Amino acid sequence: MHIVELIQRKRDGEELTADEITSLFEGYIADEIPERQMAAFLMAVYFSGLSDREVSALTACLLKSGKVMDLSNVPGAKVEKHSTGGVGDKTSLIAAPLAAASGVVVPMVVERAVGYMGGTQDKLEAIPGFRTDLSMDEFRSVLNQFGLAFIRPSADMAPADRKLRTLRQATATEDSLPLIAASVMANKMSSPIDALILDVKVGGGGAVKRQVEARKLAQLMVGVGRRMNKRVQALITDMSQPLGYAIGNALEIMEVSQTLQNVGPADLTRLSLELAARMIFLAGITANMEEGREMAQSKLLDGSGYRRFREVIDAQGGNPQVLDRFDLLPNATGAREITSPRAGYISAIDAEDIGYAAGMIGGSRMTDDGVVDPAVGVILEVKVGQKIDEGAVLCRLYYTQEEGLDDAAQSVEDAFRISTHRPDERELILEVVG
Amino acid sequence: MHIVELIQRKRDGEELTADEITSLFEGYIADEIPERQMAAFLMAVYFSGLSDREVSALTACLLKSGKVMDLSNVPGAKVEKHSTGGVGDKTSLIAAPLAAASGVVVPMVVERAVGYMGGTQDKLEAIPGFRTDLSMDEFRSVLNQFGLAFIRPSADMAPADRKLRTLRQATATEDSLPLIAASVMANKMSSPIDALILDVKVGGGGAVKRQVEARKLAQLMVGVGRRMNKRVQALITDMSQPLGYAIGNALEIMEVSQTLQNVGPADLTRLSLELAARMIFLAGITANMEEGREMAQSKLLDGSGYRRFREVIDAQGGNPQVLDRFDLLPNATGAREITSPRAGYISAIDAEDIGYAAGMIGGSRMTDDGVVDPAVGVILEVKVGQKIDEGAVLCRLYYTQEEGLDDAAQSVEDAFRISTHRPDERELILEVVG
Repeated sequence: MHIVELIQRKRDGEELTADEITSLFEGYIADEIPERQMAAFLMAVYFSGLSDREVSALTACLLKSGKVMDLSNVPGAKVEKHSTGGVGDKTSLIAAPLAAASGVVVPMVVERAVGYMGGTQDKLEAIPGFRTDLSMDEFRSVLNQFGLAFIRPSADMAPADRKLRTLRQATATEDSLPLIAASVMANKMSSPIDALILDVKVGGGGAVKRQVEARKLAQLMVGVGRRMNKRVQALITDMSQPLGYAIGNALEIMEVSQTLQNVGPADLTRLSLELAARMIFLAGITANMEEGREMAQSKLLDGSGYRRFREVIDAQGGNPQVLDRFDLLPNATGAREITSPRAGYISAIDAEDIGYAAGMIGGSRMTDDGVVDPAVGVILEVKVGQKIDEGAVLCRLYYTQEEGLDDAAQSVEDAFRISTHRPDERELILEVVG
Repeated sequence: MHIVELIQRKRDGEELTADEITSLFEGYIADEIPERQMAAFLMAVYFSGLSDREVSALTACLLKSGKVMDLSNVPGAKVEKHSTGGVGDKTSLIAAPLAAASGVVVPMVVERAVGYMGGTQDKLEAIPGFRTDLSMDEFRSVLNQFGLAFIRPSADMAPADRKLRTLRQATATEDSLPLIAASVMANKMSSPIDALILDVKVGGGGAVKRQVEARKLAQLMVGVGRRMNKRVQALITDMSQPLGYAIGNALEIMEVSQTLQNVGPADLTRLSLELAARMIFLAGITANMEEGREMAQSKLLDGSGYRRFREVIDAQGGNPQVLDRFDLLPNATGAREITSPRAGYISAIDAEDIGYAAGMIGGSRMTDDGVVDPAVGVILEVKVGQKIDEGAVLCRLYYTQEEGLDDAAQSVEDAFRISTHRPDERELILEVVG
């Protein structure tokens, strides 16, 4: 195989065969193809893209580099949920308990976050005692008992993807949609799931900024799933403002608890229910989506989702009382109000700015080995579309030390756009793909 | 400096500042920036291009990595000539002696070729005894005496360019026009020349295949020259058939001799005269191009260009008698005729196919450490536009061993396009830039 020729053909927009993709990436994984050639190939992919077939071949390669989790003694239809990442996005912690309470088996692999977006692992670990570093036996046992368990990724899961991600980070090819698709799907398929619901965030606080890109990414991932005989659907959802009101790990656990008790924010409740409904439907528990929605709704109203989450927290070493007694969660020591410089309508809340602000006061991990302060974050007091007076409180910044606070306050202030006209209403769920 | 950010900005089509380009490439040259990041950057450049300013900054960087040749004790206006490479292109060996005979000082740095194109160093070394590995003292001495000397590139000349070229070869970024431009200009500016004439070949046998690309490449190189206060002009010339009739190192020396004696092919004579005329004009020896053309013509007609070449061959250790007694050159041991399968007009002769054919029988260097057989090659018997009968001899393949001969014959046959209509005449000199 002539590597240069493969790079050149991809550069020139040609589709490579599955065999060519496989030998290229297997060669790279085995350190037979130098980083510099893979770097050039990745940048060519950034510009020329990959076909569905190529993405599937790459996914298979990455998947094959590791082991698929053994859940053979866990009966039931297994469905996972994955979000491309957002700000204030705690839907996994609501949808998964609702789905589990409906009979879906949900083996959730939760990752920590780097950058301005949150990570489900970090959110769970804000709960004192909660362990995501379960052994496989522990994971299977919790899963068998409650239909839901949370585990951090093991070193066995698609290890080649980590090698490739490091290279992508160094070469400005992280944003390539087919590379994102292959990476996500290789990791998700490292669990023996039957179906997968994807939440592709679009907008300022999401991984992709435009709906057309989100659709492309969703189509690529759904296509990979189809080729692997998995039921995969993707929602494309709005991230032009944070989801819910709370941003920050402990603050988000509080909001999860409220939402599971049906007193949460409307947008968060709506999206979580839709995700849960699709998990129920994809698991084959209901015959159609409408029944899936009804079932998810009933598990919210009768509190069984909430109870299921409590049970899993308890089973994984966490203190379930935190869901009722927020003082048992890590708490901030100070709060700063951000007020509006003028009257008008909130027309946008830049989720990326808010995410960075939380990061500046320690709320997210800005480098790979960064430490997260679970107590800090932002609570919004307003959402897009709301009318406000001059001096109204827009949000509160919760902090534990003064360092970075002024910068964070500035970033939060910048996040709010205030206009004289009422903004058009924007749909939360923009599209369904698959 | 955040390397990833620079890669990303170039990827997104932004212009970097000269300082950014400088620190990026200086960092790479100093091994502070890893190959994988430069590989990704080069591929981003392949797609996004470089501005004139960026190309100039890169050229300066490459140039600064080495030393500029010391020709301070060589008086006179120094002008060099460079071709982007073609098949049968021996114009340097005709234009340079004509210019030198007119009073131009021509410090010719000659390179060996890799691939299907010829290299002037290989052509000269087909002359028994001819040395291009002169010391700087020898080079200056020949130059002072005859106004013309040929030297192979020294390790001091833009060494960073060699490092970058190796990376470009490995990453399918060799064809990037701004990278070609910077590489050519850094090497050419490693001689303290006052002016430079460039011959940008376009068509099947040239480095670029389309005229619009040739124009862009010419403009980039002329722009770099202008920023360095050098007079630079570029001809864009047709390479849709080989230049002249001879392809192969010794065969081309014979054709050079004939052309310098004014019995050479019309196309080769015409282009060589035009190049010589521009060298004379750019050196300031004539006030305008018309007088430059007259002077070049007179040096051809009075045999002084021919004599100058003989003298330089002698001064550089070669046997000048080869110019009259071709039997003193390396000679082929066999010849195979390629005949036309049908009557018609020659509408094209793919120079790349012809170049590869010569390579298959040992006439060019297909790998970096390949050996060249100076005796072998192709002599065309027809040129584009000519009417031929069925069975007419199209060309002869000159070889020294049978190995590869059948493949070469096939490649040569494929090169000829024969049509029923007389093809439109194509200009040899398509454009002048600068």
